[in-house]
Amino acid sequence: MRLSKYYLPTLKEKPAHAKIISHQYSLRAGLIKQIASGIYSWLPLGLLVLKNIEDIIRDEMDKSGAIEVLMPCVQPANLWRESGRYDDYGKEMLRIKDRHEEDMLFGPTHEEVATDLIRDVVKSYKDLPLCLYQIQWKFRDEVRPRYGVMRGREFLMKDAYSFDVDYEGALNSYNLMYKTYIKIFKRMGLTPIGVRADTGPIGGNLSHEFHILANTGESTLYYDNKFSELLESEDVESLKSIYAVADDMHDPETCPISQEQLNVSKGIEIGHIFYFGDKYSKPMKASVTSQDGKNVNIHMGSYGIGVSRLVGAIIEAFHDDKGIIWPESVAPFRIGLINLQTKVTEAADKIYKALKSDEVLYDDTEGSVGVKFSRMDLIGLPWQIIVGKKAIDEKIVEVKNRATGEVKEMQIEEAINHFSTK
Amino acid sequence: MRLSKYYLPTLKEKPAHAKIISHQYSLRAGLIKQIASGIYSWLPLGLLVLKNIEDIIRDEMDKSGAIEVLMPCVQPANLWRESGRYDDYGKEMLRIKDRHEEDMLFGPTHEEVATDLIRDVVKSYKDLPLCLYQIQWKFRDEVRPRYGVMRGREFLMKDAYSFDVDYEGALNSYNLMYKTYIKIFKRMGLTPIGVRADTGPIGGNLSHEFHILANTGESTLYYDNKFSELLESEDVESLKSIYAVADDMHDPETCPISQEQLNVSKGIEIGHIFYFGDKYSKPMKASVTSQDGKNVNIHMGSYGIGVSRLVGAIIEAFHDDKGIIWPESVAPFRIGLINLQTKVTEAADKIYKALKSDEVLYDDTEGSVGVKFSRMDLIGLPWQIIVGKKAIDEKIVEVKNRATGEVKEMQIEEAINHFSTK
Repeated sequence: MRLSKYYLPTLKEKPAHAKIISHQYSLRAGLIKQIASGIYSWLPLGLLVLKNIEDIIRDEMDKSGAIEVLMPCVQPANLWRESGRYDDYGKEMLRIKDRHEEDMLFGPTHEEVATDLIRDVVKSYKDLPLCLYQIQWKFRDEVRPRYGVMRGREFLMKDAYSFDVDYEGALNSYNLMYKTYIKIFKRMGLTPIGVRADTGPIGGNLSHEFHILANTGESTLYYDNKFSELLESEDVESLKSIYAVADDMHDPETCPISQEQLNVSKGIEIGHIFYFGDKYSKPMKASVTSQDGKNVNIHMGSYGIGVSRLVGAIIEAFHDDKGIIWPESVAPFRIGLINLQTKVTEAADKIYKALKSDEVLYDDTEGSVGVKFSRMDLIGLPWQIIVGKKAIDEKIVEVKNRATGEVKEMQIEEAINHFSTK
Repeated sequence: MRLSKYYLPTLKEKPAHAKIISHQYSLRAGLIKQIASGIYSWLPLGLLVLKNIEDIIRDEMDKSGAIEVLMPCVQPANLWRESGRYDDYGKEMLRIKDRHEEDMLFGPTHEEVATDLIRDVVKSYKDLPLCLYQIQWKFRDEVRPRYGVMRGREFLMKDAYSFDVDYEGALNSYNLMYKTYIKIFKRMGLTPIGVRADTGPIGGNLSHEFHILANTGESTLYYDNKFSELLESEDVESLKSIYAVADDMHDPETCPISQEQLNVSKGIEIGHIFYFGDKYSKPMKASVTSQDGKNVNIHMGSYGIGVSRLVGAIIEAFHDDKGIIWPESVAPFRIGLINLQTKVTEAADKIYKALKSDEVLYDDTEGSVGVKFSRMDLIGLPWQIIVGKKAIDEKIVEVKNRATGEVKEMQIEEAINHFSTK
């Protein structure tokens, strides 16, 4: 993509109202634009990141056997009256009356719709297990939205719903999602920590929050040293069994592991998984005939990932004082190609044409060298190819790794080959 | 995909409330499920079609140089007060009050948000032309939603907004979109007819509706015989200049072409393009400095395609009394593989494993042959590979073309090769 044909409104100055790094950089790097409190438009560069995150999630969800659906944003209140949550939900639910004075709402979550989706169809244990997921915009009317896409009102979420005939099946579904989440976050270059979460009135130990490590994170995580090596093996049973909690669940007095074994790090919550039995299936009458001929309520779980929130969380995890440092798997473009002067346009054009245009953002604009360098650092593409005056006689360009800052000289042909393969 | 692991709730009977073919088949083939009047969940098979349609649109929009963004569903009323449309819009706008009693709405369209998006950034003629597009869910609170996804309340739309410094530039942008629309609909196997549309108070001849031909269509189109051959050449100026209107604009008395030259066909509207000058840029103060240093209002156009509506329109255009007949470019799977009896499971499994699993829906269920055949015809995948008893000794399967009904016997290896290369 040629920058001269692109829409990338970057900001030089830090917006005064943006308190945290990811909010500042997502505005400054032209990823988003606020249109109302907690509501954003996604600009071209931000949308590319969002889609890359979606693609990774979709790929791993599909591999797990979950099936993608898409439920609507606007839901009828009646489904929530059936589950008993309509009156309880409070002011975070955006309530709507349609032209016929019917009570509707902009879905903050989709347990009711998902249960309704399958209850007339799934009738036998033979139809199970089943796991449906969607990636859909949701709305929570936060009283004080802040931190940009980290805590927006309209936000994109991946939510999955598992349906099983019994507890054992539900546990398998739960563990499969736990493992899938580990895979998803690792592919984004993140270190996920699954911490035990309060299950509220449901009880049991089947609720985990997933936080990713980030020095600027809002939560403090306390977890066993062994967590990191178990992450490698993706051994879910062991991961679930060792000590790992966030601040709200940690008590130094009762902590079962020694100080030496305890890791304390900052993190950001980006996912939450639950098993909740028949909380929805019972009131909403979603049942199946079991293998021994009984009518049983379906055992359900739900599994969320904050997709738009992840854009912020990844920036919190990967940045420096110059800007964002995107992991390659989610970067909007892999390469930033910088043309430093009109004399080298021929060389820079040649490189651009040799590479895949959707992998390269080509700064072909007229402008000062300083502006070009700082903008490219700000938007944080993993690699920069800098075409300066050495490109003319010596056919040499500089290749810079944005994360390490390391710069290497390469022959033009060598650089083209290097970035064409892979 | 193995059908035994999939979620495909088909219906044998025609739902009583569904009046038109596409509504009946989209419910019967398990594409959608209604959750409230005019509001649907997209089931796995329907979502695949929707995404294929999106991908074609996205590809052609990108090729045209338009840049994808994503604007939010929920919009602040203030932007609509600026343009003057808030009070005019009427009951089709879903109005919302948030917890702070701010007036919001679920966007029925995005002219205001798009204008706001660029007005602080685009300041010079050098920043233009610019065309931004999105594929986003919208809401129109129709008084009597009907016809399934053809006239839903929550619907998916591709909407694009062009920004130009003058009329000439705007005309280029308009023509480029006209051409892009022709390409998009042709790739879906459809025959698009661009008809002159009423521009209302704006005047001028720069508004066209795009209808696609379908015998069951709701509108009647009157157009010059030459339209079809001009479609081949994608010659926009000629296409725009010849006679082509829908019933609301046709008057036999004043029709400038002869009866012999006039084609009369049924169609369905699936797109609409407008040039509207400074209708939004003027009240919303979106202006640029022109080449000669003057401050001028930006010339804008908008370009819509009903994405979810297209699912219905394509079914109207391509079906028979057995079910849907998907064009290959939008089909949820390319091939339906039918295992007719347990004895041939080995052969059917072999074929399934040899082909790409996302191109094949493999009916590996236990069930009657009749059910399998009629379900596969109903969901309308372009090709069927039928594995019956000849597969055991003679290694022969039947390959059926869903559109023509033609059946050919093929050696198993031959069928695998045929569908692997494509």
